[in-house]
Amino acid sequence: MSVIIKNTLILTQDDKRRRIKGDIYIEDNIIREVSAKPIDVEADFKIDGRGKVTIPGLINLHTHIPMTLLRGYGDDMVLEEWLRNRIWPVERKLDRDSVSAGTDLGLLEMISTGTTSFADMYFFEDTIAERTRKAGLRGFLGFSFLDFGTPEYRFDELFPRCEDFVRRWKDDGLITPTIAPHSTYTCSPETLERCADIADRHDLLIQVHCSETQHEVHDVWRRYKARPLEVLRKAGLLNDRTILAHCGWITKGEVREIARHGASISHNPVSNMKLATGGFTPLPELFKEGANVGIGTDGPASNNTLDMFESMKFVALLHKHHRWDPCVAKAQEVLDMATIHGAKALHAFDRIGSIEEGKLADLVVIDFKKPHLTPCYDVVSHLIYACRSLDVYATIVDGKVLMLGDDFLTLDKDEVMERSRREAERLTGEIGCWGSSVSSSPSC
Amino acid sequence: MSVIIKNTLILTQDDKRRRIKGDIYIEDNIIREVSAKPIDVEADFKIDGRGKVTIPGLINLHTHIPMTLLRGYGDDMVLEEWLRNRIWPVERKLDRDSVSAGTDLGLLEMISTGTTSFADMYFFEDTIAERTRKAGLRGFLGFSFLDFGTPEYRFDELFPRCEDFVRRWKDDGLITPTIAPHSTYTCSPETLERCADIADRHDLLIQVHCSETQHEVHDVWRRYKARPLEVLRKAGLLNDRTILAHCGWITKGEVREIARHGASISHNPVSNMKLATGGFTPLPELFKEGANVGIGTDGPASNNTLDMFESMKFVALLHKHHRWDPCVAKAQEVLDMATIHGAKALHAFDRIGSIEEGKLADLVVIDFKKPHLTPCYDVVSHLIYACRSLDVYATIVDGKVLMLGDDFLTLDKDEVMERSRREAERLTGEIGCWGSSVSSSPSC
Repeated sequence: MSVIIKNTLILTQDDKRRRIKGDIYIEDNIIREVSAKPIDVEADFKIDGRGKVTIPGLINLHTHIPMTLLRGYGDDMVLEEWLRNRIWPVERKLDRDSVSAGTDLGLLEMISTGTTSFADMYFFEDTIAERTRKAGLRGFLGFSFLDFGTPEYRFDELFPRCEDFVRRWKDDGLITPTIAPHSTYTCSPETLERCADIADRHDLLIQVHCSETQHEVHDVWRRYKARPLEVLRKAGLLNDRTILAHCGWITKGEVREIARHGASISHNPVSNMKLATGGFTPLPELFKEGANVGIGTDGPASNNTLDMFESMKFVALLHKHHRWDPCVAKAQEVLDMATIHGAKALHAFDRIGSIEEGKLADLVVIDFKKPHLTPCYDVVSHLIYACRSLDVYATIVDGKVLMLGDDFLTLDKDEVMERSRREAERLTGEIGCWGSSVSSSPSC
Repeated sequence: MSVIIKNTLILTQDDKRRRIKGDIYIEDNIIREVSAKPIDVEADFKIDGRGKVTIPGLINLHTHIPMTLLRGYGDDMVLEEWLRNRIWPVERKLDRDSVSAGTDLGLLEMISTGTTSFADMYFFEDTIAERTRKAGLRGFLGFSFLDFGTPEYRFDELFPRCEDFVRRWKDDGLITPTIAPHSTYTCSPETLERCADIADRHDLLIQVHCSETQHEVHDVWRRYKARPLEVLRKAGLLNDRTILAHCGWITKGEVREIARHGASISHNPVSNMKLATGGFTPLPELFKEGANVGIGTDGPASNNTLDMFESMKFVALLHKHHRWDPCVAKAQEVLDMATIHGAKALHAFDRIGSIEEGKLADLVVIDFKKPHLTPCYDVVSHLIYACRSLDVYATIVDGKVLMLGDDFLTLDKDEVMERSRREAERLTGEIGCWGSSVSSSPSC
């Protein structure tokens, strides 16, 4: 397949030439040419880029995709109560069908809001991989470990099944298998060590929750006389393949440790703020120490979206607010987090994260002919402070057009939404606002 | 004109019946019937409400509309530097043409994002009134006072011109003239007293900035040995017609004073966070004392949008985060702020702010058939946590359809955007990203 985008304003995120007004030519899955001069070729898809800005696809560094099914299923609740009374009872009932529907719904949302790569950690990750591959997104998918097992596997099955998962997906062009020990409060040091062993043997990325809440840090300290980061390090899980989700409650010493080991952080401000986890990722200190920090939405049950544009604005504003300093988390820094730093965390910056000839074609075209994007003094300012995710006009992953205007090319939008509603109803027993195939009475 | 909305899910914001699945019939500018049973009448406009939610129009309680022209014109800068080097030099060059273009652009944005009423305070307010009337929005427009004059009038002209402004607009159906002494640090006590006199004589709403920054509070204290709220009270400007913008740096005593005097607050979290003003409006304390608090975006130069959906999510999340308590600023409370409390602040809750038979027809229809709004357990949760402003499908003000789908019925979108670009270029000397009529070279 080939694609040409004509007369677009290209924000490359490539230091050699940051802004180009011109054309992009994509052949197969590769960006072949980026040029200020017209590229005159025939292509399967021709996109009129006038009044549109083309950027590298956004990278969502932390999510639990199938939780789309629980979007808005309990808000404004204390974390423990929310988990115990709303989330966990439903998660126990998950199966392939529900995960498949929830994943498709999340993929649809990510495609429509400009995310081209995502790092996920959840259950039935094989199903998530299959659906992601079919929809055409780039997934870095974590096989989850919990000492009490998962809805899919008993604890003793997890290790062999993880090896299967890794073998099955390791040579795939879109899916990268990763390992995801859930956290230091749900995995014993022994489990963590066994995960480290698998990760080392297969050279896997490691996804793990770390210091999300004060309670977690206290709990882990009580058990091990060590903070979560130290527990991970001792287990062999702190290295340049590690992506630490949250890090809202880390010390200055831990900031240095993270930087020194070359680990990355997924900063997830919307979820942290909504769940009121209290802490906040110390961005200026992390930048100063040279740590790599990307942005995640977290699962849609605690966000309640997968909207990376929204998360970028939250990152920019939250840290200004915390430090009483509007110069913190500048627009360009935040955009870098959602593209370059995300790609680096995934060990994929040689392939994605910027628009450069020879890189994989993961691009997003945004329609700037909108009242809320007028006038336009600076594209980067608008991307962070004014763009809405729904301004995305086209999403291209691996050279394939996944969305163009209102059309989704790899997913049947209405079918996915209807199937998701049915599965959500089956899981929760709640009919939802629009009724369903079963009943049409409004419940909310 | 008559409008019928069929088969919609109505979120009335009326305690007597909160949610109705049915029809709404509008005749002239009044909501005539809201019914769970089909209303069979012919109407000039028929809106298919299936899969859509109808809510009262959102009320933006604090803005400076024409600053759309300076959207993104300087971000990530220290407040003083931003004002001195970017905003003020440009504002000095404002004239009727630029204000007219900037206002139209802001009206376009508000219409497209579900705002039906707004409280504004700026310069050339007569022009803003004319444009607002023409576009069909409901404006509560503040004639601004500054001791050093405005771009429109010398200081000594302000008082007679304000009286003219009030006389001109006081009987208008859409425009309500208000008075807007800028603040206690830009208006002397004498100016404030003269404003209070005009306000009392004409029974005007009063809009004033109050305790936005720590610097302001210190500065006013140094001059008057009183905090801004006390200065306003002494001048006769603290009463139930007062709308205090910001109140990020108020004490518990001041919370009680505000409640006791029946004054309202416009809480503007996005602007406060972006400018890093540090403080935050103490929402739980204000609610506890029974103070009336609405939501504003502030001007688009410091936000950088007029997006009330975004501001609602920021309100909900910021206060949870501050208090380490997810139960603070619940979804329903935040929606109330943007509708009911906004209407109360404007002394207009007998006419707007909820969907009730006999009230003015200010309504917003939102398309919920979207991946990011699926599934839907609770409409209010989605409105605050998942809806994007661009999900708005139709905006109706005073019974008149202003937007339906992609069509604006009172403004020429392309013409307004082009005129705004030209005026922005004239003011700032910057060509902007898309070039302009003058030049087509990209500058960013």
